[in-house]
Amino acid sequence: MQCANEWSCISETGCDCTPFSSWAAVCTLAHILADTMTDSQTDGAATESPMEFYEKLTAQGEAVKALKTGKAPKEEIDVAVKLLLQLKLDYKRVSGQDYKAGCPPTDSPASGESVPAAAEDGDDLVDPWTVATSNAKGIDYEKLIVRFGSSKIEAELIERMERVTGQKAHRFLRRGIFFSHRRVQQPSPSALDMHQILDAYENKKSFYLYTGRGPSSEAMHMGHLIPFIFTKWLQDVFDIPLVIQLTDDEKYLWKDLTLEDCHRYAVENAKDIIACGFDVNKTFIFSDLDYMGMSSGFYRNVVKIQKHVTFNQVKGIFGFTDSDCIGKISFPAIQAAPSFSTSFPQIFNGRKDIQCLIPCAIDQDPYFRMTRDVAPRIGYPKPALLHSTFFPALQGAQTKMSASDPNSSIFLTDTAKQIKNKINKHAFSGGKDTVEEHRKHGGDADVDVSFMYLTFFLEDDEKLEQIRQDYTSGALLTGELKKCLIETLQPMITQHQERRKQVTDETVKQFMTPRKLDFHF
Amino acid sequence: MQCANEWSCISETGCDCTPFSSWAAVCTLAHILADTMTDSQTDGAATESPMEFYEKLTAQGEAVKALKTGKAPKEEIDVAVKLLLQLKLDYKRVSGQDYKAGCPPTDSPASGESVPAAAEDGDDLVDPWTVATSNAKGIDYEKLIVRFGSSKIEAELIERMERVTGQKAHRFLRRGIFFSHRRVQQPSPSALDMHQILDAYENKKSFYLYTGRGPSSEAMHMGHLIPFIFTKWLQDVFDIPLVIQLTDDEKYLWKDLTLEDCHRYAVENAKDIIACGFDVNKTFIFSDLDYMGMSSGFYRNVVKIQKHVTFNQVKGIFGFTDSDCIGKISFPAIQAAPSFSTSFPQIFNGRKDIQCLIPCAIDQDPYFRMTRDVAPRIGYPKPALLHSTFFPALQGAQTKMSASDPNSSIFLTDTAKQIKNKINKHAFSGGKDTVEEHRKHGGDADVDVSFMYLTFFLEDDEKLEQIRQDYTSGALLTGELKKCLIETLQPMITQHQERRKQVTDETVKQFMTPRKLDFHF
Repeated sequence: MQCANEWSCISETGCDCTPFSSWAAVCTLAHILADTMTDSQTDGAATESPMEFYEKLTAQGEAVKALKTGKAPKEEIDVAVKLLLQLKLDYKRVSGQDYKAGCPPTDSPASGESVPAAAEDGDDLVDPWTVATSNAKGIDYEKLIVRFGSSKIEAELIERMERVTGQKAHRFLRRGIFFSHRRVQQPSPSALDMHQILDAYENKKSFYLYTGRGPSSEAMHMGHLIPFIFTKWLQDVFDIPLVIQLTDDEKYLWKDLTLEDCHRYAVENAKDIIACGFDVNKTFIFSDLDYMGMSSGFYRNVVKIQKHVTFNQVKGIFGFTDSDCIGKISFPAIQAAPSFSTSFPQIFNGRKDIQCLIPCAIDQDPYFRMTRDVAPRIGYPKPALLHSTFFPALQGAQTKMSASDPNSSIFLTDTAKQIKNKINKHAFSGGKDTVEEHRKHGGDADVDVSFMYLTFFLEDDEKLEQIRQDYTSGALLTGELKKCLIETLQPMITQHQERRKQVTDETVKQFMTPRKLDFHF
Repeated sequence: MQCANEWSCISETGCDCTPFSSWAAVCTLAHILADTMTDSQTDGAATESPMEFYEKLTAQGEAVKALKTGKAPKEEIDVAVKLLLQLKLDYKRVSGQDYKAGCPPTDSPASGESVPAAAEDGDDLVDPWTVATSNAKGIDYEKLIVRFGSSKIEAELIERMERVTGQKAHRFLRRGIFFSHRRVQQPSPSALDMHQILDAYENKKSFYLYTGRGPSSEAMHMGHLIPFIFTKWLQDVFDIPLVIQLTDDEKYLWKDLTLEDCHRYAVENAKDIIACGFDVNKTFIFSDLDYMGMSSGFYRNVVKIQKHVTFNQVKGIFGFTDSDCIGKISFPAIQAAPSFSTSFPQIFNGRKDIQCLIPCAIDQDPYFRMTRDVAPRIGYPKPALLHSTFFPALQGAQTKMSASDPNSSIFLTDTAKQIKNKINKHAFSGGKDTVEEHRKHGGDADVDVSFMYLTFFLEDDEKLEQIRQDYTSGALLTGELKKCLIETLQPMITQHQERRKQVTDETVKQFMTPRKLDFHF
């Protein structure tokens, strides 16, 4: 499974490019581990001390490093990594502590600031670099809300949005795809949640939208569009400025890519984003590598944030270790900075009180938890957040989407024929093995990827519900369900491709030039 | 004692603004501790375990933090800090490990990369934030060269410089004030030392100069001018471009100052630097806060460096801890980046092979050790370095110069009368207690601050030597020596003040505007 947003998600190509001791790299393989866990847990572990596990773990880490450096065969590395992961789990079980390179086990838990560690809950793993679960229905979002401390978007909030804007809620809201937001615990003028955004809107106070993407390759798939489709709707409904961050610096820091490649991917991805229909007069798209060198406000905010966040904090939030490069360690400030209007003096005329609403996949939430923590300490309003669920891979909600596996998703460059073949061949089905059985017992829409995709992309609520009922009853066969999805996606993708063709280099340049937008501040 | 350069030296105002667990803050007080060490070392320490010390230390750290937060009286904080430092020493003695917040003692030393820890050698402490010694003659530079792994500037190198440039060597070279440089261990085309710089010069290959200053206040003293006086001479002799970095971002990160104040200090300090006589057509002065947002090359190089340096490395080099903010942790890349010509595309036309020579006080060397380590891995030539000694405080080579104590140095704003009074009242004398004794035994020029200052500022070698001999023999009295210094400094400072008055805001703007210089690349 892949985060829908892919904004700073590095899991696509596995962990080859990250050092052993990066927590993120380890997590990406957690689902592999799930299969082997029970075997080795009985492997004499109970008789060993935390220090013995610590030493084994350190040695195994070195072994993995050596294999990677020596470009050993993938199978060999995989086996070594599996063992490493197992040792980490055993170590945690025995010592009650997370493994930290260079920090052996202690009797008392190490002191640190009370920031929740990167999430790990049963089989679900969610952080900005990894989304993994062993559940065919996907991540348990109810649990995730509790763990992240966010709030569910209740029917009442959606109704209020419709009332205030006079518009029907977007299907992503109606269907719980954008399912969570950040509430304010204690009402405060500088803290913001979706209700306050609506209050502001009713009082004719402006706010702005901020979302983004990590440009790790030229290839974007349908899942990558989710936050942009939704953000476009929000922009249309509220008529407010939008800034879109392309974190090419982050991709350079995390992946084995050149700076030039990352920047090129940013520009290519911008074309697909523009093809979603954004208004050039209301939207500023920026590459970090470019904009840092073009703005009098961005770097100043980055430094302000960096002064107010310690290594202990980012270690707690993102799982960084002492072996991580200092670029990764300080990067969270760069994703945080666009949450503050002074990062865009050309748009907001230097005003620091314009509030920000961030639609993003929930794996990006750690960045903005940190941002909300820092905001009042540097005199800025906290951004509000709307969280989406993740977009499943064709192979099922528990598998990982991979840019290197063209069959794991529908790409924005796929032909109508490719779309048809991929769905027919690879889309995980909740149907029964034979037509007879299916007719008799019905299919399971909850695990059926074609049905999940329709939930994202079929606008008609009644038709979707009819499909669900027919599939569950057995009236609708898997092939028929797939046909319905194919017919929904083919024109969507074709239209996207046509719009993208219209996006010239000149258009991209316009969107990416720092400038005043059509709003007065 | 204060570093001559003060480029990123935070020791001026003591450690009030840095958190307890910052190694830098602790070091600034090491000389206080020297007095109390022996007493408490017998204080039952031997009977306590490393873990007990660790817990005491953590508690004491919290206590110091609380006192500072609560703005307790200075005396109370000083006592608490002394105890904290003592506990750190005891902890190291008992556990064999440096105290790390959140990382309790272990049996085996924590793994880490083999980078030398920030220097600590007997009583001498030298890192970018602290210079401290208990020796009246000042830092032992011979030892420092060995510890830092640099090379002494031998007579032969000075002779070659004179031969190649056709100019008499600057008095700072003749007198060992610029005393050390970085040699290349194994000859390599990408590594550079002073001999290679001279080879290049002979072959009409250009290079450029880079130096800087940390603008921690408006007030600059004479010591701050040392690197600029020398750099100006190098620029005149070699006729090459010069870039001067003002690390206003660093001062914001380390000190309790606003971003606006740090930036204002940068501009004010630029005026004093310009008054040294730099050529506007050959010199680019920049504030990090401004230039980061104006350059297409600077941030790209910062990110490249940040990708190739781990937290383990900066911990080893600079003594950062987990409680340090992520801004400090990533800052070294920002001081490193101007060592590479691509940080200034407007000057070097995008060329990445122009080599860099950095004149600086030796406390800045850790930044450039790191830079030289990274350079070949990102495809850039290593910078060459020329290191200066430190400029002593009026009270003696072992005391700390402090911007908050106007009597610790001669400031560039002092009147002729203030200069006279300060030298007569405060300049530590190597003379004897009575005229009779002085006549009989002679004075000690090696510890006499007036004589040290003359070494820096009196151009005439013969006259200086005569003064040394007369003072040592007792023919010259302390009052006469001081008079000689007063008469040397008064016109220098007056002239500086007159030149500074000529520096208009428009001139500053010219120097600080990114632009092509009068060189063709």
